[in-house]
Amino acid sequence: MSAYDPAGDIRTAHLMADAARAAILPHFRAPLDVENKLDAGFDPVTVADRASEEAMRAVLARHAPDDGILGEEFGETAGTNGRRWVLDPIDGTRAFISGLPTWTVLIALEREGRPAVGVIDQPHIGERFLGWPGGAVLSHGGEDRPLRTRGTRSLDTAILSTTDANLFADAEAEAFEQVRRKARLCRFGYDAYAYAMLAGGGVDLVIESGLQVYDVQAFIPVIEGAGGVVTDWSGGDASGGGQVVAAASRELLDAVLPLLAPAAAR
Amino acid sequence: MSAYDPAGDIRTAHLMADAARAAILPHFRAPLDVENKLDAGFDPVTVADRASEEAMRAVLARHAPDDGILGEEFGETAGTNGRRWVLDPIDGTRAFISGLPTWTVLIALEREGRPAVGVIDQPHIGERFLGWPGGAVLSHGGEDRPLRTRGTRSLDTAILSTTDANLFADAEAEAFEQVRRKARLCRFGYDAYAYAMLAGGGVDLVIESGLQVYDVQAFIPVIEGAGGVVTDWSGGDASGGGQVVAAASRELLDAVLPLLAPAAAR
Repeated sequence: MSAYDPAGDIRTAHLMADAARAAILPHFRAPLDVENKLDAGFDPVTVADRASEEAMRAVLARHAPDDGILGEEFGETAGTNGRRWVLDPIDGTRAFISGLPTWTVLIALEREGRPAVGVIDQPHIGERFLGWPGGAVLSHGGEDRPLRTRGTRSLDTAILSTTDANLFADAEAEAFEQVRRKARLCRFGYDAYAYAMLAGGGVDLVIESGLQVYDVQAFIPVIEGAGGVVTDWSGGDASGGGQVVAAASRELLDAVLPLLAPAAAR
Repeated sequence: MSAYDPAGDIRTAHLMADAARAAILPHFRAPLDVENKLDAGFDPVTVADRASEEAMRAVLARHAPDDGILGEEFGETAGTNGRRWVLDPIDGTRAFISGLPTWTVLIALEREGRPAVGVIDQPHIGERFLGWPGGAVLSHGGEDRPLRTRGTRSLDTAILSTTDANLFADAEAEAFEQVRRKARLCRFGYDAYAYAMLAGGGVDLVIESGLQVYDVQAFIPVIEGAGGVVTDWSGGDASGGGQVVAAASRELLDAVLPLLAPAAAR
């Protein structure tokens, strides 16, 4: 049994999320220069993404200077103690530049090779989803409430979500379509916010592909702390990104993995 | 020039939206019985939909007893003065039951055969988008700010949105795909909230099909008041529902209509 007490890291994560909120909100729904990070295609980044990561890094420089950092915008900063904060300063930049309030700030503390504390923060709505080993909570409007998945066990009663079905390649698209046809309902377009909804008992299943390490690390503790499960499409560790499936229960995951197996990367 | 002064109807619309908020919010993200309105497929309705419409009808019974009402849940109530309130008590019930905060309450006042005042209200976020002949405003967090579309004129710089690309039939799917390929970006999954984002300058183009009269009437005054345009896929009146296209500018609409024409219903 680990002697890890997450209280100090949770405090640090709250300070980081507070700093990111203050850095981002002045830019939301304001006129923005949008840069494209890709030569082919459109991968937008804005001054808000950079301001958010800088604000979080400043908190770490003060409160956890020995910890390493991996951030989407400014890359890797080595630490000296084997711990690492993994940051996506704005997940869902496409939603952000569209004015949609479903982008989030993602913060994870990785220790012993696994994300231990995770935050999914939505500054405009003022919702903060926090998970740690053994629990998860939603803070909103000055109130905290425990997060629990709905515990849905069968696919035919499950609400499925993915960000954009067009993102799946050939075999992946077929596998996803198998799941979608059997699910009760499918919602598109919510990036990491969909995983927060899974922890909160709204959505039952999220399936995505092509995720980066900073896309996935934050929601794993939130979902696990709420009683859900997260794996890759083969049922293995998902904390490195790639193909991810998150489910409200182990039974639901076990019902879905055989449908995803033909397209699983390993 | 019309002598219509919308001030009284705007006051009534605010009272209705306030009443709907109070009726719905206790049910949001709470355990809910979800009924299916369809024999084949899944068209959910909840106690929250009905409570919302009842609350708005109670306001009208007190403040505008001579006006007619058309509501999604309780149908048509004849009026005596040619005016009619058109109500969707929860637009986006699928989002609602998934915990996603992008469902809205839709309120429109129809006079002389056209929607004159419209409200798109999102109770959980506390956002109210209001439009009338000549203006539109977003109220949020105790502040009001005028709504203006971004005025985008060309499709290659436009952000497109639709609720679910799977809802389009054969020729419609082809026409939509033509537009999607030429647009800068496409976001899925936001029901009427996407039209509110268009009025607010985030999204530039919303294309949908199969809409009901109570789906469309509220957002027309909001978008027109913000400088945008709403038509059917032939460029005609969209206030009866069906195929709808909303654009940030007349130029953008004119660029898109030829792509939609092969699938236009008339």
